[in-house]
Amino acid sequence: MPLRMSTLFLRTLRDDPAEAEVASHRLLLRAGYIRRAAPGIYTWLPLGLRVKTKVEQIVREEMARIGGQEVYFPALLPREPYEATGRWEEYGDTLFTLQDRKEADYLLAPTHEEMFTLLVKEHYTSYKDLPTTLYQIQTKYRDEARPRAGLLRGREFVMKDSYSFSVDDAGLDQAYADHREAYLRIFERLSLEVVPVQAQAGAMGGSKSEEFLHPSPIGEDTFVESDGGFRANVEAVTTVPPAALDEAAMAALPAAEVKDTPDSTTIATLVEVANSLAPRTEGEWTAADTLKCVVLTAVLDGDERQQFVVAVPGDRDVDLKRLEASIGEALGVVGEPTVEQATEADLKRHPGLVKGYIGPGELDGQPVLGTESATGLPFFVDPRIAPGTAWITGANEPQRHVFGLVAGRDFSWDGVVEATVVREGDPAPDGSGPLHARRGIEMGHIFQLGRKYAQALDLKVLDENGKQVVVTMGSYGIGVTRAVAAVAEAYHDDRGLVWPRALAPVDLHLVATGKGEEILAAAAQLAEDLEARGLSVLLDDRPKVSAGVKFSDAELIGAPTIVVVGRGLAEGKIEVKDRATGQAEEIALNEAVDHLLTVVRG
Amino acid sequence: MPLRMSTLFLRTLRDDPAEAEVASHRLLLRAGYIRRAAPGIYTWLPLGLRVKTKVEQIVREEMARIGGQEVYFPALLPREPYEATGRWEEYGDTLFTLQDRKEADYLLAPTHEEMFTLLVKEHYTSYKDLPTTLYQIQTKYRDEARPRAGLLRGREFVMKDSYSFSVDDAGLDQAYADHREAYLRIFERLSLEVVPVQAQAGAMGGSKSEEFLHPSPIGEDTFVESDGGFRANVEAVTTVPPAALDEAAMAALPAAEVKDTPDSTTIATLVEVANSLAPRTEGEWTAADTLKCVVLTAVLDGDERQQFVVAVPGDRDVDLKRLEASIGEALGVVGEPTVEQATEADLKRHPGLVKGYIGPGELDGQPVLGTESATGLPFFVDPRIAPGTAWITGANEPQRHVFGLVAGRDFSWDGVVEATVVREGDPAPDGSGPLHARRGIEMGHIFQLGRKYAQALDLKVLDENGKQVVVTMGSYGIGVTRAVAAVAEAYHDDRGLVWPRALAPVDLHLVATGKGEEILAAAAQLAEDLEARGLSVLLDDRPKVSAGVKFSDAELIGAPTIVVVGRGLAEGKIEVKDRATGQAEEIALNEAVDHLLTVVRG
Repeated sequence: MPLRMSTLFLRTLRDDPAEAEVASHRLLLRAGYIRRAAPGIYTWLPLGLRVKTKVEQIVREEMARIGGQEVYFPALLPREPYEATGRWEEYGDTLFTLQDRKEADYLLAPTHEEMFTLLVKEHYTSYKDLPTTLYQIQTKYRDEARPRAGLLRGREFVMKDSYSFSVDDAGLDQAYADHREAYLRIFERLSLEVVPVQAQAGAMGGSKSEEFLHPSPIGEDTFVESDGGFRANVEAVTTVPPAALDEAAMAALPAAEVKDTPDSTTIATLVEVANSLAPRTEGEWTAADTLKCVVLTAVLDGDERQQFVVAVPGDRDVDLKRLEASIGEALGVVGEPTVEQATEADLKRHPGLVKGYIGPGELDGQPVLGTESATGLPFFVDPRIAPGTAWITGANEPQRHVFGLVAGRDFSWDGVVEATVVREGDPAPDGSGPLHARRGIEMGHIFQLGRKYAQALDLKVLDENGKQVVVTMGSYGIGVTRAVAAVAEAYHDDRGLVWPRALAPVDLHLVATGKGEEILAAAAQLAEDLEARGLSVLLDDRPKVSAGVKFSDAELIGAPTIVVVGRGLAEGKIEVKDRATGQAEEIALNEAVDHLLTVVRG
Repeated sequence: MPLRMSTLFLRTLRDDPAEAEVASHRLLLRAGYIRRAAPGIYTWLPLGLRVKTKVEQIVREEMARIGGQEVYFPALLPREPYEATGRWEEYGDTLFTLQDRKEADYLLAPTHEEMFTLLVKEHYTSYKDLPTTLYQIQTKYRDEARPRAGLLRGREFVMKDSYSFSVDDAGLDQAYADHREAYLRIFERLSLEVVPVQAQAGAMGGSKSEEFLHPSPIGEDTFVESDGGFRANVEAVTTVPPAALDEAAMAALPAAEVKDTPDSTTIATLVEVANSLAPRTEGEWTAADTLKCVVLTAVLDGDERQQFVVAVPGDRDVDLKRLEASIGEALGVVGEPTVEQATEADLKRHPGLVKGYIGPGELDGQPVLGTESATGLPFFVDPRIAPGTAWITGANEPQRHVFGLVAGRDFSWDGVVEATVVREGDPAPDGSGPLHARRGIEMGHIFQLGRKYAQALDLKVLDENGKQVVVTMGSYGIGVTRAVAAVAEAYHDDRGLVWPRALAPVDLHLVATGKGEEILAAAAQLAEDLEARGLSVLLDDRPKVSAGVKFSDAELIGAPTIVVVGRGLAEGKIEVKDRATGQAEEIALNEAVDHLLTVVRG
């Protein structure tokens, strides 16, 4: 049966809703696909549910092709498994938690690694049972600090999450490769351009990891690519450091020298002062010759504030997001601290720091920075601060800087971290040329988790030699509801949505225009005939609605083909219009069904 | 592609799991359809998910047939709409509640009346937009005090819930009738016998209401039926009261008389004492002649404890569940109080009550019970305590009872409530004969909500005369996951599950037995051929597993037809066995596909 506009639960909105900033959100609201129920939480209306179901079906078919078996986990889960892996704490405020009537702790699952691991543990005991890949298409919950852009970053959303279980690394590599292929096929079927980029594994633990980013100016992720084919999320870019010098070569460098540098609290003024007081022969000093020591605060679980210092070349800014990806491990703390600039209050706790003149050199024979230092502040350097590099930096006294302070000779550090912004033109780590930055929406993510979860939850099987071995796992996600929004974002114009055929809520939008029972009867008959041949039709049979309103609703809703039954009917003609190109052609009514079958099925 | 036992994520259990009390729960666990994730919260494994999906598809088709339009609401919802209708409070501990990172209150929806009402309000403004019926198949949450019997009473479960919106009562009647028909068709397609019984609307508010109970000894609901066709949930049975006397007839009855009744604190001893001290000519006194005043406590929202007294004939027990259905309204309190026996502490708060001798008569010229009485205790009577009925009851003094105390003449009450247990043999309220009791599982429930929610949330439309009218609503539920369990409960034997064809996870379970590559190759080929014709097959291709284990797994899993490819293959024969009857026949391999198509499709 065709859908009929006269009864379809749909009211298109003429005006842009105030709540929507991006086109997909605006149009999905206006065309009646979704409605907001709470911040980041949406209701699916009939048309939207059809699109969502189509995305799910494509995902399901491609998961079946790589042997994935579908299961379905609860969203409401007990605390214990997440406690065992540390994620109950790690997720922090992003986790929706609650208590049941017996005051037992529960969570709304943001992802299901723990439960899948325990399920396989309950079922399997031998290498012969593996490999296996399980997946679900299920509702997930994350209490995002800033839900935005409608379905693009929601708090309740649907994901396909799958998990592979293998007895060895080769098995994991195979499962990972299978998923990678399946994902590329899925995004192709969704008509969604994606770029697989190397990624940091983040809260998931594990090693190898790629994100599938859909290039889009409204994306929240920045990725970089080189002409030579390197692609990575900026958090995953590693800096190409200068060659390190050995001890002898370092020792041969000129000794560091403290100089008066009046009025030089910024990098720009310091460079100016340096060039006027201590010009050098091999060209002017630049910001890249200076070393900036930035005091930062890692906000740990329980809101503890831990200060630390990062040294970066003076011409680079600190990238807090990149820093967050590694600072937890560098500091040796559990979880994923957020990093922010140290506040005045933070700084007051460390009176040994001389604001504007902080440096890693010694003062009164003792280093100022580092866990063994006078301040006790953990001290990290960007990879560019390689052993043997020489710097102009603060002398820890007002109005004084030290020149020629050599890394590894005159100061040491607690660790090397990726701390600076990746810039247009920086070299790709694999030598494939300079990097260019683009923005993207994360559509999927594949991870080699390795043995982290299996270890934490004791998932072992007997190997061929009868020895207990820890299973190695992969975890793979695709945002289903996000895909609906991303496709809407990629396929729209100023009049509305323009769905790719595979996802359109209906194959054809059939508009009956003009007065007279005859036209409506002919349109209804055509709709029935088309449905009988397996096409899905939305028939605009509304009485007393103008042709103009019907056309603009059709364009807003965005079925790929619009069929008009109207004035031409007197000559036995109808009009077939392509929503994307706007091209229209008249065809004979008696050839319409066959013609439209060809249009839709190709 | 056929499912293969060698790779299917499934481990059948030989032993009954300790956690399972009822057959469906035990077998769904043993046959690998579900696994427990937390109390009342289950994971769906591949076979279970297939059955669940089939139930959903049947529901979807029948809802479409009555014009239902599918939408999908979030499970995580803000407090406000539920606050507006009073249900945030009313649900009490059954509601899972939580706060987000901004400390805003949320709930996991147990049902969605409020959200549907608001959605329609957002869309529709005119009588021309109505009627409309919307539904969803969605995950619901209820923090049951005693989750039990696996999927039968879970805390996270899937329901189909639909809501009708009409401009007038006739429209609501139509929507209600449509749903009733659809439900009967759905249960027929699910092969599930159901009995529609009249029900109390309970927490849902509203008027007309029927439950679809599946008769089963493990059911939690009791319903009664008469040979004349009356059927109702016990909570909905109304008592047939004796005829009331008018004032003159009451006045003509003998005066009440207080007598000493030593050692008569129980009904039994009272009857004995009455017959020995004050025998009557028209036959012995029985318990039915005595009036029992029972002190009870209604536990209100916020755990406030409100005492009240109910008078029932001495031969009847109080039915707390029936009482709970009406006591909230009788007491004039919000919500659905639970009712329990008054504790010693409760009784101490009312020193005017003489334990064992409580009665509604006057003491020192003032009534003892009722809101205007000495004790101030609200006082209700069972409908059998009709005006003009005379009773032996407590005289509010130790060791004394009053004889011939006439209802409506010698005492009055605050209200009439259904308070007693419905007994086998009680008359049906419609005069259709004596009632018999049966147990049942509630599979569906249809309600005429009326205007309660529309009023609370201000859902109005303009009627034909341009006047604002409040919309009238119906609410209709079917337990999807519960249906899986109920069918499993209804269709099993001591060897395992016996699925009806429409719900079986696969059409055919194909067992390859015996050694040799040939047999397995023939079985695999047959499985492929059957799948090519649209049948779904589970192929037991496990190497090194005995025929006995394969057969018992097949019987446990419960596909309706089991096909054996084994020894007979040498003569070109295979065996086809009906799971339900055990009947087997040999057929020729080369006729197998056609034969099995007929077996499955009929």
